[in-house]
Amino acid sequence: MDYGQMCPKYEEAASLLGKKWTGLLVRILLGGPRRFSDFRHQLPALSDRLLSERLKELESAGVVERVVHDTKPVSIEYRLTEKGQALEPVVQAIQTWAESWD
Amino acid sequence: MDYGQMCPKYEEAASLLGKKWTGLLVRILLGGPRRFSDFRHQLPALSDRLLSERLKELESAGVVERVVHDTKPVSIEYRLTEKGQALEPVVQAIQTWAESWD
Repeated sequence: MDYGQMCPKYEEAASLLGKKWTGLLVRILLGGPRRFSDFRHQLPALSDRLLSERLKELESAGVVERVVHDTKPVSIEYRLTEKGQALEPVVQAIQTWAESWD
Repeated sequence: MDYGQMCPKYEEAASLLGKKWTGLLVRILLGGPRRFSDFRHQLPALSDRLLSERLKELESAGVVERVVHDTKPVSIEYRLTEKGQALEPVVQAIQTWAESWD
C-alpha cells in the first residue's frame, strides 16, 4: 500500500477521529445507542450547542443516525450506522498504540 | 475495552494523526527515511516553515527522529522511531476504512 499519497478520503477519516469531541462521541456510541441526555450526563464539559453541532457533523459524515421512536413523549436516539460501526477497528488500533507507547 | 472514557493518551494519538500535514508526514516516513528536500519535493504546497514545525512536533511526540550522518557535506535524515513505526496498523486501519466507505 502506498501511504505517501495525499488521499482526501484518508484525511477526512483521520480528521473526523482526531477532532476533539467527535472521536469521543464515536467511542461512546460503540457501546450502543445513546440519547442526547446520556451524552450530557457523561460529558458535562461539553455544551449542548457544541454537542448538537458535533452530532450533526457525524450525521453528515454518514457515521451516526438519529432515530425517532414513536412513543409518548417521542424518544430520540443516536446510533452508529454500519459505516460508523466499521470504525471500531480504527478506534481499537489507536487505543492499542496509545496504551503501548505512553 | 471501554471506549467511552476520556483518555488523554488516545486523544493525543488521534489528534496527531488527524492533524493535516502531520499524518501525511508519518505516512510518507512509513516508506523509509527521508531528507528535508524529499518532503519539499513531494509536498510542494507545504511551506518550509510549516514542514519544519510539523517535523519538530513529531520529534517531541517521540514518533520521528532526526539523524545526522557524518558525511561531507553533513546529511540529515528523518525517520520513524520504533514508536512511530508502530503507527503502521493505525494508518492501515484508517486507510481501509476510508476506502471501504467512500
